[in-house]
Amino acid sequence: MTDVQNQPDTRGIKIKRTGVTGVRLPFFISDGANVQQVAAQIRFTVALAENLRGTHMSRLTEILTSRTKIPIKIPDVEKILLDALKKLSTDEAAISIAFKYFFEKISPVTQKVSFSSVDCEFIGELVRGGRMNFSLSLSVPFMSLCPCSKEISDFGAHNQRSVCRVKLTFKNLDDVSIEKFVRLIESQGSAQVFPILKREDEKFVTEAAWQNPKFVEDILRDVVLALRREKNLAAFSVECENFESIHNHNAFAAHEEILS
Amino acid sequence: MTDVQNQPDTRGIKIKRTGVTGVRLPFFISDGANVQQVAAQIRFTVALAENLRGTHMSRLTEILTSRTKIPIKIPDVEKILLDALKKLSTDEAAISIAFKYFFEKISPVTQKVSFSSVDCEFIGELVRGGRMNFSLSLSVPFMSLCPCSKEISDFGAHNQRSVCRVKLTFKNLDDVSIEKFVRLIESQGSAQVFPILKREDEKFVTEAAWQNPKFVEDILRDVVLALRREKNLAAFSVECENFESIHNHNAFAAHEEILS
Amino acid sequence: MTDVQNQPDTRGIKIKRTGVTGVRLPFFISDGANVQQVAAQIRFTVALAENLRGTHMSRLTEILTSRTKIPIKIPDVEKILLDALKKLSTDEAAISIAFKYFFEKISPVTQKVSFSSVDCEFIGELVRGGRMNFSLSLSVPFMSLCPCSKEISDFGAHNQRSVCRVKLTFKNLDDVSIEKFVRLIESQGSAQVFPILKREDEKFVTEAAWQNPKFVEDILRDVVLALRREKNLAAFSVECENFESIHNHNAFAAHEEILS
Amino acid sequence: MTDVQNQPDTRGIKIKRTGVTGVRLPFFISDGANVQQVAAQIRFTVALAENLRGTHMSRLTEILTSRTKIPIKIPDVEKILLDALKKLSTDEAAISIAFKYFFEKISPVTQKVSFSSVDCEFIGELVRGGRMNFSLSLSVPFMSLCPCSKEISDFGAHNQRSVCRVKLTFKNLDDVSIEKFVRLIESQGSAQVFPILKREDEKFVTEAAWQNPKFVEDILRDVVLALRREKNLAAFSVECENFESIHNHNAFAAHEEILS
Repeated sequence: MTDVQNQPDTRGIKIKRTGVTGVRLPFFISDGANVQQVAAQIRFTVALAENLRGTHMSRLTEILTSRTKIPIKIPDVEKILLDALKKLSTDEAAISIAFKYFFEKISPVTQKVSFSSVDCEFIGELVRGGRMNFSLSLSVPFMSLCPCSKEISDFGAHNQRSVCRVKLTFKNLDDVSIEKFVRLIESQGSAQVFPILKREDEKFVTEAAWQNPKFVEDILRDVVLALRREKNLAAFSVECENFESIHNHNAFAAHEEILS
Repeated sequence: MTDVQNQPDTRGIKIKRTGVTGVRLPFFISDGANVQQVAAQIRFTVALAENLRGTHMSRLTEILTSRTKIPIKIPDVEKILLDALKKLSTDEAAISIAFKYFFEKISPVTQKVSFSSVDCEFIGELVRGGRMNFSLSLSVPFMSLCPCSKEISDFGAHNQRSVCRVKLTFKNLDDVSIEKFVRLIESQGSAQVFPILKREDEKFVTEAAWQNPKFVEDILRDVVLALRREKNLAAFSVECENFESIHNHNAFAAHEEILS
Repeated sequence: MTDVQNQPDTRGIKIKRTGVTGVRLPFFISDGANVQQVAAQIRFTVALAENLRGTHMSRLTEILTSRTKIPIKIPDVEKILLDALKKLSTDEAAISIAFKYFFEKISPVTQKVSFSSVDCEFIGELVRGGRMNFSLSLSVPFMSLCPCSKEISDFGAHNQRSVCRVKLTFKNLDDVSIEKFVRLIESQGSAQVFPILKREDEKFVTEAAWQNPKFVEDILRDVVLALRREKNLAAFSVECENFESIHNHNAFAAHEEILS
Repeated sequence: MTDVQNQPDTRGIKIKRTGVTGVRLPFFISDGANVQQVAAQIRFTVALAENLRGTHMSRLTEILTSRTKIPIKIPDVEKILLDALKKLSTDEAAISIAFKYFFEKISPVTQKVSFSSVDCEFIGELVRGGRMNFSLSLSVPFMSLCPCSKEISDFGAHNQRSVCRVKLTFKNLDDVSIEKFVRLIESQGSAQVFPILKREDEKFVTEAAWQNPKFVEDILRDVVLALRREKNLAAFSVECENFESIHNHNAFAAHEEILS
């Protein structure tokens, strides 16, 4: 059977990334002792040499399928990429694994326990002979209350749900705790959000937000300050977005930094 | 050239709706004197007799294309459906035309003029020999402020962006004003939302919401009362959703009614 | 602390559905012996009597959270709804639980094992004193190849990914197998789709589709015939959509039926 | 009335981008003589000096609203950014304007005229004293047919809808034709897609794709070769994605290049 992918190519263009996207597989993701089964959405690509016509896409989904039984920790992403370098005879591989991950969330007064979900993404790139370049993306919700609205109004202040999206690059991947960064970020808004709030809790959250008004720029700067204190970070980018209750559009702020 | 669609079918199943979905065309939509060009997303289907294998999909996009030059008013939807009955030799046709439509929005104190968009959908069904059954769907944003949070808290009250989705069925299609119903619905929240708010306006909106706290159930009931007063309505359904600032989920209420 | 929700309401409108939407929780879903952890997206509502101002939203998320530890089978949905009737002192409750569920998928020639995901939704409604009204929605992908294109062309035939969405209502909920219906529906296209296909498999699938050309109307009718043979079904609706490779829009067909 | 935004900030962080996102306005977009009204989705940001607490968001929507009457050509984007530098007293501004744009599309044999839509995005950045950095993003659909499937199968070949997303940076903005690049890109697949295809046209397109099989890597390389010939390009990135008819996931290839 002819191997059309292996035909020579004369256009002289090395492709940096070719492979599969929109793959859905049931992965077990491990964050420390917390292991959850997730419906991962995956992009998995390799470099294609300039003299080859096509890559072997089916090998990529085979490699991914082989990882559905055993929990995946962040350092395991490098093993998946090494597998790709080997099985696809290439010198570069990249992967994105996106999933929802749940963390326990306890209401502030009545101590009701439930779970809140965070959008996570593992992003890994590996060049043959090097170390994996890895980033963790998180999208974390919280509440914001507008300082201007509070200051100028005789009563009340507009507030709304907000989200902070961070992309974190680490020096050392062995002990990265996803939960630690979720907790760090959700603390930078005017107040946290919760799945269960009894009345005493709702009073607490409402008053907490009122006493802690923050513009989207305030939240961004506080996230930046908090991330700068993390010794294991090599670089980060941050985007904050407030789904303004007084508009049908959003307020936004973004920043990125490479740490020495 | 063989006409495979016209082959006989022996499975004995009349299909109520077959046609095209996800069609995008540049329509001009007229709401009274207001005419806007929109990127309409269209579903257009016809019934298929039990003895025929397939319908003629291309005739549907031809009919739609023929309507791209002249403004479409609501009563014109019946002409599109009649065209389908004729050109596809069928006894039933249905269409959904979804688009964003802009309305002028003036800030409450400084009178700054801008535009806010509303998601609209024309839904028409026609059986040969009958009159078109037509519904207008609207998705209208506003602000809500929680009465419970206001009552129990020593200061502040959580508030958030909300949306009300209505589906309206009319007795008479000749004088339906989309804008009238948008204005009616956006007035039922705790406060309206605006594209431009200077500080004086922000103070006004913040205080207006504070003085008019409403649960999602309150908003739903007030929309119901407002719609019951509309003499030209034959039926309606309403969904209200508050994007709760204190949760990462939403509060919801729904109701439907057939008017005598 | 004042219970504002419990305030009397004089507008005289009973609300059929009010509650929470967009809730995300980690549920374990059981389909026979197959148990998977999913990131469920949930809408959970109750009726609100005309003399009450608001419902108790937090009790709904408490009920849902109490179900995160033990696998949920279809009949368990009724227990969740009964819990809502009791804890919210109401006479009607409804729930939608949407999630991705994975099924093993083996390539047709080389027998490579992987997993494919299906969008599932449990929809339950319960009126006090009655039995739960339950529907299962499934969205199942496959491949379609156009009979007209094959017939009129000297070589080739356009083909594409397709999806079939069904909503199934059952007589008896004790032995419903989700997988059985997924297998039934994915067999009605021109060919099935697979996560891993080696070259021998790709040849098999390509030729299988070529030998089994089907219009969207053909697929719809074949799904209808297959569902009519299921003794446990009380009613069903079907929508088929082909993401036409020759257009930037889709071909569509829909049908619904109540079985005696 | 206190100007809280103008309060001093001591955290020492200059913010590169803060402003509004998700703004929807009715813009008229001009591509040569072709002027269309679109429902633009806009992100509009400015830099915020490290000593200032917040930016003036309402001035951004005011600037945008002032552009709703007169057609916007690509060079006009710089005027919008200059307006922001001035009215917000800042040294950097950025904008993204995303919209659907329609182009005439004529069926290949019967010459039936209709319209196809392309997702466009204008992306501009301006630093005080410099020239605007501008990119045009386009997302263009077409059809692809798999060379491997064709070669190994006794009959047929899988094919599917594909999309190519390009981001183009220009040397000179005065004469950029959006349509020219749409035409260039849609010609690089196995065949083009059309809104209306009569049977003679469908035969033509089916056979054209059959005679022009291309992997996603082939399409990517052909787009790269075509873009390299464009003298006015300073840089480009390309992503191609095939919505594989034999899988429920996609094939993907990406490349980027800075031209001398």
